[in-house]
Amino acid sequence: MKIRFSDLLSDFLFEYETPRQVLVKNKRVGVVCRLIQLGVLVYIIGWVFIYEKGYQSTDTAISSIMTKMKGIGVTNENGTARIWDVADYVFPAQGASSFVVMTNYIMTEGQQQGTCPEPQANCTSDTDCKGGTFKRTGHGQLTGKCLTGVRKCEIQAWCPTENEPKTPDPALLMSSENFTLYIKNSIAFPEFKVSRSNLVEDVNITYLTSCIYDPKNNPLCPIFRLGDIVKLSGFQYADIAKEGGGIGIVIDWKCDLDFPVRYCKPDYSFYALYGDAQKTDSTQSSLGYNFRYAKYYMENGTEKRTLIKVFGIQIDILVWGEARKFDIIPTLTAIGSGVGIFGVATVVCDLVLLYVLPKRDLYKNMKFKHTEIQEKKPASNLDDGNTANEGAGLH
Amino acid sequence: MKIRFSDLLSDFLFEYETPRQVLVKNKRVGVVCRLIQLGVLVYIIGWVFIYEKGYQSTDTAISSIMTKMKGIGVTNENGTARIWDVADYVFPAQGASSFVVMTNYIMTEGQQQGTCPEPQANCTSDTDCKGGTFKRTGHGQLTGKCLTGVRKCEIQAWCPTENEPKTPDPALLMSSENFTLYIKNSIAFPEFKVSRSNLVEDVNITYLTSCIYDPKNNPLCPIFRLGDIVKLSGFQYADIAKEGGGIGIVIDWKCDLDFPVRYCKPDYSFYALYGDAQKTDSTQSSLGYNFRYAKYYMENGTEKRTLIKVFGIQIDILVWGEARKFDIIPTLTAIGSGVGIFGVATVVCDLVLLYVLPKRDLYKNMKFKHTEIQEKKPASNLDDGNTANEGAGLH
Amino acid sequence: MKIRFSDLLSDFLFEYETPRQVLVKNKRVGVVCRLIQLGVLVYIIGWVFIYEKGYQSTDTAISSIMTKMKGIGVTNENGTARIWDVADYVFPAQGASSFVVMTNYIMTEGQQQGTCPEPQANCTSDTDCKGGTFKRTGHGQLTGKCLTGVRKCEIQAWCPTENEPKTPDPALLMSSENFTLYIKNSIAFPEFKVSRSNLVEDVNITYLTSCIYDPKNNPLCPIFRLGDIVKLSGFQYADIAKEGGGIGIVIDWKCDLDFPVRYCKPDYSFYALYGDAQKTDSTQSSLGYNFRYAKYYMENGTEKRTLIKVFGIQIDILVWGEARKFDIIPTLTAIGSGVGIFGVATVVCDLVLLYVLPKRDLYKNMKFKHTEIQEKKPASNLDDGNTANEGAGLH
Repeated sequence: MKIRFSDLLSDFLFEYETPRQVLVKNKRVGVVCRLIQLGVLVYIIGWVFIYEKGYQSTDTAISSIMTKMKGIGVTNENGTARIWDVADYVFPAQGASSFVVMTNYIMTEGQQQGTCPEPQANCTSDTDCKGGTFKRTGHGQLTGKCLTGVRKCEIQAWCPTENEPKTPDPALLMSSENFTLYIKNSIAFPEFKVSRSNLVEDVNITYLTSCIYDPKNNPLCPIFRLGDIVKLSGFQYADIAKEGGGIGIVIDWKCDLDFPVRYCKPDYSFYALYGDAQKTDSTQSSLGYNFRYAKYYMENGTEKRTLIKVFGIQIDILVWGEARKFDIIPTLTAIGSGVGIFGVATVVCDLVLLYVLPKRDLYKNMKFKHTEIQEKKPASNLDDGNTANEGAGLH
Repeated sequence: MKIRFSDLLSDFLFEYETPRQVLVKNKRVGVVCRLIQLGVLVYIIGWVFIYEKGYQSTDTAISSIMTKMKGIGVTNENGTARIWDVADYVFPAQGASSFVVMTNYIMTEGQQQGTCPEPQANCTSDTDCKGGTFKRTGHGQLTGKCLTGVRKCEIQAWCPTENEPKTPDPALLMSSENFTLYIKNSIAFPEFKVSRSNLVEDVNITYLTSCIYDPKNNPLCPIFRLGDIVKLSGFQYADIAKEGGGIGIVIDWKCDLDFPVRYCKPDYSFYALYGDAQKTDSTQSSLGYNFRYAKYYMENGTEKRTLIKVFGIQIDILVWGEARKFDIIPTLTAIGSGVGIFGVATVVCDLVLLYVLPKRDLYKNMKFKHTEIQEKKPASNLDDGNTANEGAGLH
Repeated sequence: MKIRFSDLLSDFLFEYETPRQVLVKNKRVGVVCRLIQLGVLVYIIGWVFIYEKGYQSTDTAISSIMTKMKGIGVTNENGTARIWDVADYVFPAQGASSFVVMTNYIMTEGQQQGTCPEPQANCTSDTDCKGGTFKRTGHGQLTGKCLTGVRKCEIQAWCPTENEPKTPDPALLMSSENFTLYIKNSIAFPEFKVSRSNLVEDVNITYLTSCIYDPKNNPLCPIFRLGDIVKLSGFQYADIAKEGGGIGIVIDWKCDLDFPVRYCKPDYSFYALYGDAQKTDSTQSSLGYNFRYAKYYMENGTEKRTLIKVFGIQIDILVWGEARKFDIIPTLTAIGSGVGIFGVATVVCDLVLLYVLPKRDLYKNMKFKHTEIQEKKPASNLDDGNTANEGAGLH
């Protein structure tokens, strides 16, 4: 028996295999199966394709942020008015994506290296003050002497030590509520080679000079009033200004690049960070934000510093960008796995057909053809002669 | 009819089900179907596997950046030369991934808290200057007095207020063009437990002391000339130095970890941020970058400050890392959904076979077997007797 | 031949197609195929569903970080003790996610603009010092004069220039080993609308006042001893304190949101950045971290500065968050593609059946039905009459 390769090839090329099928004319199983198949179809088209846009591939954004605060603050301590401008109350100065706006402070002026009493270490004699040691939360190194006048251990430190009375209440810089924050945000989707700025088409220079962000009326204005930010994040301004706290501004870019790029717009939202904004109780471990900062200067050849314990609003601008665009691979993967789920539907229908319906033995015999005579099983009464033959593999 | 479980189990174990198929010997449908199947195969193997590497799973990088500027700048104001070194012109000092190189500035020396005229508030009498108010873009709080000599309202502020003439043109620190930036970048792919540094195998200490990044000749050198960065991002150095601007340096890690890790190398690219680099027209809302910064000092017991409006190049280093590695799950998912798409090909061919070809009725009868006699439909002339019997379910 | 639409519809609705199959009663092929199918089933259920949780969709976190250092350092230079507190040794002050703790320094006090010798430029006469030029790594601009006394070119610079002897060894601030770092981390999964803080349920204010992080005993305590961080990252404290270096603290959030959110906890790990922690040899290009920082002051009307070359530990806190939650789409995609892989199993079994087994021709004839008489091929001896008829398409 000689088989030529060209014959095999032409057989392969010009032949088409298609599965033989039984058409079961049964209303019950027919309707059940069509419903299952309809469900699968609705799922694939409605859910995967239309609702979840499974025909698109996604890309996440890389992003740059530039910020600029504006506004003048006034404090009035002991009758002396003092003006605070942006160079005084923003840390760091250069407009980073994470920065602090000072709203309250404890200032200790004229500190210099020397010895003074440690407010946290009480003593009655020198034996209470072990020289050379220091407390983790203290201000300096114990010299070993007990200052019997004030009954405190002497330390070497920046003296005088910080005067830690109660945090000023109300906050000294309550006028910070009217400061404004201007955010410039630039994003790029490297895979799709698309880049955008939050100064979108509608935001021109005229609009910028007058607008203030408002979730309803000016949702695209990139200039925010500090008081509004605090309110939208759920804090009370008086509380956060006094104790300090963290606020996250999330810029959400969800872009469907199958539409023109001008529909790709930022969405701003505001969150309380590090805890629940509703609980401003200071016993909560997750509240309050402060840091210490020093301005150094020379006075008569001696280095001195002004230590400032800054309470403020830490603003963290987080960008979350996701772009979607039609792509052939997720489309075909979705279709392919959809066909697979159709296969599951067929399996379910077959189970109904072969194990549940009263005529199941007939259907079994029509569906299956056996390769060997099954002598153990008697031929079912439902089988007609031909089918029995087929089952017996003689056909 | 007693059925034993062991019989069923052995039936299940030793039996194999395979679909019965019709082999349609028709050149047209054969070639069409083979072409469709070939297309699907080429798509799955060529596109999904080879081009898109669908057999790999992906991981995104976490990354750390350390930067260091080098270079000396010289300015010459009113005949007085002044040297600027890295401690003077980089903000912040500690080498963050986002920083500013000062290229131009307006300096206001000797400011102290006091009263002076507000340049933005003209007046003719005290009634024009409402005491206690302040403008958002002003310098301080109005005292309510009109300084009739200069016809400006008096404010309490850091005085004298910033002298805002035109921005110095050309930029004072044009010599910044030759500053160099050294970037250290460390990335890790947590899923794959791989970490890399941008100081790859070829970048040794000898190379580092002499190289300057060049996209063609030295694409792996991590030392960049500021002028080159600006040029590659599309800006003119004179423009950006004068007005300030943002530049993004994207370090792109695309690693195929099925190859040795030494092939995993960074790729640097440079983008203009916050707007179109081609339009340096200052009326564009998206151009220009500056911030105000103060150096505080004590003079004769009075706190004073030097206010500097810094114009500069904000450099934002963004890392975008993606590693890919063979993984069994995406491989099998791709194969599985590919088989599903093969199923779609079969459906298309079946439609051609059963509804388009002239012999469609013959093929229909061969493919389908009906469970009931269909009396409504007359037997097609193309059907031979046996096929009719089969169609009638008597077979 | 008139076909009514309603007939077609009822045919479609009440009919069910199911593939006809051959039941091959052959132990070898049966067992092989059942094993292959079992393998696929185990893979889909065991690997994709249980091990890799393929029924879940994923979301990555956006995150905010707040840090706070505590501790007092003491240095002793030339017999003068000096106390360093957090305002002195942390850069930047405001508690960012990436910051530097100073551990060693070279201080150059009293610099002012003027002329002085450039330590790096030797000369014998003025011709060796080209006026107006400057070296990239130098300190200032050459005036063109050669200072014959010290045989160095004169430069205009911040004078005196930095005294660069060897880096102090051991590090001046070795006491930094006991500093503590408190990390507050807030994350959110925007898709799942879940947010968490690293101050999880078990971390209350009492615990916070006393705990120190320990990988075994206190893995959730957010207060870290600097010496522990360095040790866990693989560095020797004495080395990194002297030369400086980078350490990454990775906060890993892997949350299965099908469980209650309280099980979603952070995991801290520590990495050496920018090179191999085991090699502290300073000839390695990837080791050492320092930056220059200046404190400006006025003295008798002249601007002066203290330049500090800071060696320190750069700490970079990186958050890597991934949440997973049951989702219908990945579930059905996994099932669908699993069914596809089942299809591959069938193809493999068919190949065995039709090309390997001795009775392959019988199986071929049972599986396939030809549409045309194949005259070239003689009927196989194994075929009985009926099968030949079927193969000939007359059946």
